[in-house]
Amino acid sequence: MPAPFKIAPIGFVRRTDEAVWIEIAPPFLPAMEGLEDFSHIQVLFWFDRNDHAEGRSFLKVHPCRDPENPLTGVFATHSPLRPNLIGLSLCRIEAIEAERIFIDRIDALEDTPVVDIKCFIPTRRELSSLRLPEWA
Amino acid sequence: MPAPFKIAPIGFVRRTDEAVWIEIAPPFLPAMEGLEDFSHIQVLFWFDRNDHAEGRSFLKVHPCRDPENPLTGVFATHSPLRPNLIGLSLCRIEAIEAERIFIDRIDALEDTPVVDIKCFIPTRRELSSLRLPEWA
Repeated sequence: MPAPFKIAPIGFVRRTDEAVWIEIAPPFLPAMEGLEDFSHIQVLFWFDRNDHAEGRSFLKVHPCRDPENPLTGVFATHSPLRPNLIGLSLCRIEAIEAERIFIDRIDALEDTPVVDIKCFIPTRRELSSLRLPEWA
Repeated sequence: MPAPFKIAPIGFVRRTDEAVWIEIAPPFLPAMEGLEDFSHIQVLFWFDRNDHAEGRSFLKVHPCRDPENPLTGVFATHSPLRPNLIGLSLCRIEAIEAERIFIDRIDALEDTPVVDIKCFIPTRRELSSLRLPEWA
């Protein structure tokens, strides 16, 4: 299957003043089964507001939009400007009600398309000998 | 920008008996700058071998392909069979040499297209009150 690869929403980010949740689209409801046993999920979403040639052209940014942070390759950041506009947030599940997964927070705007959800299973390996730059 | 959203490789997984690395495609080399300050990256890749209607139709699987594990929604697993075929691995950087990011391991086959790389910045929030199902 040649590129480009095609992805489509499996749900959307919804917000009120009091809550934030992911609303899973009806065809994908069976794929939620078992989420209730996890405390955390990794949510992959699409930075749809940046889905144009300029938004996808950025290869370097100042992390956290702070000009005092050194100009850094987007692969070394979580910038919403990047060649493939996939966002990734680790979220705590607050509750699951029918098609809604209530979460603590997500760095995504209202109505942002969600393209995948994965359970979060940390390992000791990940946590040993971490090293980060100063801006992080 | 309506769905489907389009993504394209920014590199590929390469393997020998001795090493595994991500080879970044030439247009995206500037986006690597700053990776050297991190110990770990999150690698997003495309399960290209499953990019057909059947591969994308699975909504439930037995985790780890073990029939003794309960049938579980793919969003509560890391199954390579899922509606949007994005894989996600946390990898330790072993070395960076020109266009190659040598990593400790990745759950992806030789020549798998890589679609994004993000730095890994854990927070205390993520690690508090974790809960997992028995199979994990």
